[in-house]
Amino acid sequence: MANKINVTIWNEFTHEKSNAAAKAIYPKGIHACIRDFLADDPDLNITLAALDDPDQGLPDEVLNNTDVLLWWGHMRHGDVDDSLVARIRQRVYARGMGFMPLHSAHHSKPFRSILGTNGDHSWGDCQKTIVWNIFPSHPIAAGVPDYIILEDEEMYGEPFFIPPPDELVFVNWYEFGNIYRSGCCWHRGLGKIFFFQPGHETCRAFHNPGVQRVIRNGIHWCAPTELGTPVPASCRHIREHISEIAPDKY
Amino acid sequence: MANKINVTIWNEFTHEKSNAAAKAIYPKGIHACIRDFLADDPDLNITLAALDDPDQGLPDEVLNNTDVLLWWGHMRHGDVDDSLVARIRQRVYARGMGFMPLHSAHHSKPFRSILGTNGDHSWGDCQKTIVWNIFPSHPIAAGVPDYIILEDEEMYGEPFFIPPPDELVFVNWYEFGNIYRSGCCWHRGLGKIFFFQPGHETCRAFHNPGVQRVIRNGIHWCAPTELGTPVPASCRHIREHISEIAPDKY
Amino acid sequence: MANKINVTIWNEFTHEKSNAAAKAIYPKGIHACIRDFLADDPDLNITLAALDDPDQGLPDEVLNNTDVLLWWGHMRHGDVDDSLVARIRQRVYARGMGFMPLHSAHHSKPFRSILGTNGDHSWGDCQKTIVWNIFPSHPIAAGVPDYIILEDEEMYGEPFFIPPPDELVFVNWYEFGNIYRSGCCWHRGLGKIFFFQPGHETCRAFHNPGVQRVIRNGIHWCAPTELGTPVPASCRHIREHISEIAPDKY
Amino acid sequence: MANKINVTIWNEFTHEKSNAAAKAIYPKGIHACIRDFLADDPDLNITLAALDDPDQGLPDEVLNNTDVLLWWGHMRHGDVDDSLVARIRQRVYARGMGFMPLHSAHHSKPFRSILGTNGDHSWGDCQKTIVWNIFPSHPIAAGVPDYIILEDEEMYGEPFFIPPPDELVFVNWYEFGNIYRSGCCWHRGLGKIFFFQPGHETCRAFHNPGVQRVIRNGIHWCAPTELGTPVPASCRHIREHISEIAPDKY
Repeated sequence: MANKINVTIWNEFTHEKSNAAAKAIYPKGIHACIRDFLADDPDLNITLAALDDPDQGLPDEVLNNTDVLLWWGHMRHGDVDDSLVARIRQRVYARGMGFMPLHSAHHSKPFRSILGTNGDHSWGDCQKTIVWNIFPSHPIAAGVPDYIILEDEEMYGEPFFIPPPDELVFVNWYEFGNIYRSGCCWHRGLGKIFFFQPGHETCRAFHNPGVQRVIRNGIHWCAPTELGTPVPASCRHIREHISEIAPDKY
Repeated sequence: MANKINVTIWNEFTHEKSNAAAKAIYPKGIHACIRDFLADDPDLNITLAALDDPDQGLPDEVLNNTDVLLWWGHMRHGDVDDSLVARIRQRVYARGMGFMPLHSAHHSKPFRSILGTNGDHSWGDCQKTIVWNIFPSHPIAAGVPDYIILEDEEMYGEPFFIPPPDELVFVNWYEFGNIYRSGCCWHRGLGKIFFFQPGHETCRAFHNPGVQRVIRNGIHWCAPTELGTPVPASCRHIREHISEIAPDKY
Repeated sequence: MANKINVTIWNEFTHEKSNAAAKAIYPKGIHACIRDFLADDPDLNITLAALDDPDQGLPDEVLNNTDVLLWWGHMRHGDVDDSLVARIRQRVYARGMGFMPLHSAHHSKPFRSILGTNGDHSWGDCQKTIVWNIFPSHPIAAGVPDYIILEDEEMYGEPFFIPPPDELVFVNWYEFGNIYRSGCCWHRGLGKIFFFQPGHETCRAFHNPGVQRVIRNGIHWCAPTELGTPVPASCRHIREHISEIAPDKY
Repeated sequence: MANKINVTIWNEFTHEKSNAAAKAIYPKGIHACIRDFLADDPDLNITLAALDDPDQGLPDEVLNNTDVLLWWGHMRHGDVDDSLVARIRQRVYARGMGFMPLHSAHHSKPFRSILGTNGDHSWGDCQKTIVWNIFPSHPIAAGVPDYIILEDEEMYGEPFFIPPPDELVFVNWYEFGNIYRSGCCWHRGLGKIFFFQPGHETCRAFHNPGVQRVIRNGIHWCAPTELGTPVPASCRHIREHISEIAPDKY
């Protein structure tokens, strides 16, 4: 158990209760759908969380034990407490928690605050979408074909106001003429961030096996790296360290 | 005049009034020293601003006409109004204002907020410092030799908790064993950011011709790029645009 | 004259003599077309060169005075002398000559040798193409709108086997489902490289004002940066330098 | 066995036979030393190879079964067959073999050819060296402290003529004033490359536990990623694919 990745899937969980189309596709909620398709991964220990849960789903005992946090939100971004955003950001920066904003989380408070961006982009109707894999040797593209076809997915288009991705893995093609950097990796503090575009609440992306594979890979990639010596709390004078530390012992 | 770069040099301007050593080196303030060594650049139109000025030195009529904002602060980071930070960030993201945080501005509110970082690092006593130029073909390194020697500069060391620089131009060597990514470029929204480490208030970095050249180059690099069509305010359907726009006219 | 950028536009110049469609669009050759649309830029000093010229168009007196080399080739990549490729690469690496491979130059010997890639990609029929500007604050995107529509351009698609671009400026959308990283910047040695996709010999891309603006911007971006002290030929011991070089003089 | 990483450690293996100091430190050769400290990693299946072996140590049956190739060479770079270099590069680009050039391999033919660089840098006497970990969340830095002290290591210094690393993990500090990008990651074709500086033949770097951990991590990072659908051999028309491929099956 010790080496398992503790994954918390946070979902606004509002559309699926109020919108018939969303409810039909994700009857138990998007978060539960993601949990279900990850169920056969023995390395993951999964918790679900939702905006209307106590402490907005992320009390300290949950957040402080989360290795990778997935985030789906859309119509109620503004309801997320600023103090929760600060706690999430701190956990990413200082503890290396991985953060995976999905789809409309590009406009969520944690995404904007962690990355340093307003997250604005162009958008349009649902349409045929092809997710192109432009970095096949990246761990997040493991086992993913050259492209994934989504018959119907909401159009998110460029210009997308994000920091240039440290690693750009996927780019979307849309039937009516747009493109979008749809699979983007960044590093902030000790934490890794992976944004992935597919996942409109009335489309079926989370049922697509290619999308599912990307999300699974993303969780593994976002998991915290084992740290060496602790990050120093304050001043350090290497001059002194050199005489204190035996060579070849680092 | 129309093509000149409007530069605003913002300075906390506190040390130079309260600390004898700082006053001796920068009698008119660090901001005035920078203005003076830039005086022979005909492309620059320079304004000075300080924390104790009305509107903390950056009323709308100043900020909204600034192309590149230099920022030096240290002991009074907390005094900068959050609303001013928000206005600066918005101008960087949406209007492409360049932002040049100098030295201890790594912990300033605008740096943290614009980039998405806490800006923490290691630090120590002033000591001999060598600024290594590792990207000699970068515009910010134009005319800069392989290294700049500073006989005395405050030690800022790794680990430095910054997003991986989009372009890393300088790395510092310190006498007592540390190194530091000291010249870092990032892109946020439409704006360019260049952080440069030298500039402790009781050292003489801003009198060094190598440092002066880097700052001059940095301003030119940070200046906003001419935009093409306006950034869309909302939804865009390329499908419709294609029929509206004549080919070869873009 | 001293500050002008010496540009050499190298063209295989074969299609335009043997193919009626290419000849109709580019009667004087692609290289002459590019020269003509750049004619009003007072900063450029332009030379034309072609594969069938003496010394394959690039004798020492031309190459050694070139600041930026544009390269268009397709059906006769194999005819380019390996010794010329070595001279071009050396000039990019050690002298900072800019290199701008256009369209099918992705498979040219200089492109492969300078970058370290085989340059392979997918390809297909000519079709409607939209060049998306994803980095509007980049100097190469100056004045370029959000997208450029090309009614007809050859499809070059992902996966494109290139080193991850240091700066990715444009991505193409194609009518039949493909995307492509179509405007890519890299740095090699002291030189800058900008690859741009549009330019099939039987399409009209070089007559498009958006494409023309990108090429103009690319030349300015690729121009060599002023160097500081010479690159050392051999060993350097900073220990000795420190005592030899007066502080604050770098 | 099927999931083990096949590692081939290639060594020029000349210094250790001709130089008493090198022989004393690495009596069985640098390659054997590396194998020995990796012996407790159950995921690795290790083969040794040397320049004077038949086929220069890398006949097809070895190279074509290698997942990660480590390379140490120095005084006999020129003796490596160009045809072997081409085979190595092809295996990296098209098959995703990882490549780990160590120390003086910065000037080896495979390093230059795979990356696209001349690999030049400054250098000097052996001296106290500190390897700084500037990317603690990178997989190659797993378990590595903030810095590794090497009492004695050859100075390799900036300017180092390499393509800007896709990921920069370590930077060296040297006692006499130099710094160096000493742990660098790149991507070429389907393959990953990790260069690591420590390892002069008359110093003791490969006996240092920090260096050993980095090399172990590097091998795991460089291992090929599982591919999805095969890379296309030639032309692809997505238009046709779209009708052939059932949605949600990718």
